[in-house]
Amino acid sequence: MKKADTLIKALTFDVFGTVVDWRTTVIEEASRIGRTKCLNVDWSGFADAWRAGYRQAMDRVRRGELPWMNLDAIHGMLLDRLLAELDIAGMTEAEKERINRVWHRLKAWPDSVSGLARLRKRFIVAALSNGNMALLTNLSKNAGLSWDCILSAELARHYKTDNEVYRMAADLLELQPEQVMMVAAHKEDLRAAQAIGFKTAFVLRPLEYGPEGRPDLEPDPAFDIVASDFHDLAEKLGA
Amino acid sequence: MKKADTLIKALTFDVFGTVVDWRTTVIEEASRIGRTKCLNVDWSGFADAWRAGYRQAMDRVRRGELPWMNLDAIHGMLLDRLLAELDIAGMTEAEKERINRVWHRLKAWPDSVSGLARLRKRFIVAALSNGNMALLTNLSKNAGLSWDCILSAELARHYKTDNEVYRMAADLLELQPEQVMMVAAHKEDLRAAQAIGFKTAFVLRPLEYGPEGRPDLEPDPAFDIVASDFHDLAEKLGA
Repeated sequence: MKKADTLIKALTFDVFGTVVDWRTTVIEEASRIGRTKCLNVDWSGFADAWRAGYRQAMDRVRRGELPWMNLDAIHGMLLDRLLAELDIAGMTEAEKERINRVWHRLKAWPDSVSGLARLRKRFIVAALSNGNMALLTNLSKNAGLSWDCILSAELARHYKTDNEVYRMAADLLELQPEQVMMVAAHKEDLRAAQAIGFKTAFVLRPLEYGPEGRPDLEPDPAFDIVASDFHDLAEKLGA
Repeated sequence: MKKADTLIKALTFDVFGTVVDWRTTVIEEASRIGRTKCLNVDWSGFADAWRAGYRQAMDRVRRGELPWMNLDAIHGMLLDRLLAELDIAGMTEAEKERINRVWHRLKAWPDSVSGLARLRKRFIVAALSNGNMALLTNLSKNAGLSWDCILSAELARHYKTDNEVYRMAADLLELQPEQVMMVAAHKEDLRAAQAIGFKTAFVLRPLEYGPEGRPDLEPDPAFDIVASDFHDLAEKLGA
């Protein structure tokens, strides 16, 4: 991609995995709460199961098998199920709510805060995530992430990778799809954005699924940019 | 209002007039474009007529006499009418678009940038404006205003003072109405927010309508706070 691209006006960012390290934060916070309740649980497995359940539940919402519910509601439904499977009883609603809100307190990858700030000098920088508005707002405030605006799948009442979400983003920004670049660590997100005309940047996050994780990091020539982090992305965009 | 209020989690800000000085910017920019076209027009009257027309058109949308259209579309429709009334012909679509986008480039009041930054340290600080998302995003970026999130009437497809707009804001933030304080220079905005349970802060902007303007600055004991600017508001909120 040529430097100083003048066509691109806005960058829209996937958040979970791309901007924040959900797995480490969920494990840390759940372990801490677990210790206070004297629970003996494999919290890494707990985090992975929670995340895997989210994909399944979201797909059921996308297929219309579940009514629309936002991500906090999906997380809460899954948490109830996980606690039952683990035979953990006696948690108060407030305690469960405290655990469910861990998704509002995820930590950013080391380059995220400074990388987004650098990119904001040149582009409109927006979140475009399946997280709901309150989650994204609280998460960003807590992690020190600054956006020009937050766009949530909740506003379209569709989840990515439904094309309605990407179209909503371009429409709300009053931009043509080719003026927007989707930035994500996940190929299916980029392919769906590309299908309606977005530019694409694939950012490698090798640790998203932990040290044992095996994410798909294979560069794909279909994407406009492959970047090792947000500063590399800024470099490649001439920002 | 007692200092260090712990109930309030978020402040939602009206933008036109409360955060930005729409009138001065519209006059300056329209005059500049007018000079390049050798037009002899009373640009102050032009700005006031444009703004007055917006209120009427928005009310027609609210009553269902016009279909939903966002603020950029309302401004564009009114601009065509104003140019016709002033017998100004021969403007290209690009020139008209350039004038219409003046609303994306409004200047902030002198205390707005630093005042919002100060309030953000303590509260979720969100725009809650009839401006559309693109307008608010571009305006904020241009003026250096930073929000935790931007909430636009466009997302509810209702204009303030319809209660749907305030409810949407509380719902998207996952807060109870009493955890949110509406901040505005306009009493009708505050009264509508108060009617569904928001706290209210009345900020005095004596120059919104220019040196000859006569805005209603009378304090009203129904509001929780009356403030002379955003730093005074921060002081009164213990922020």
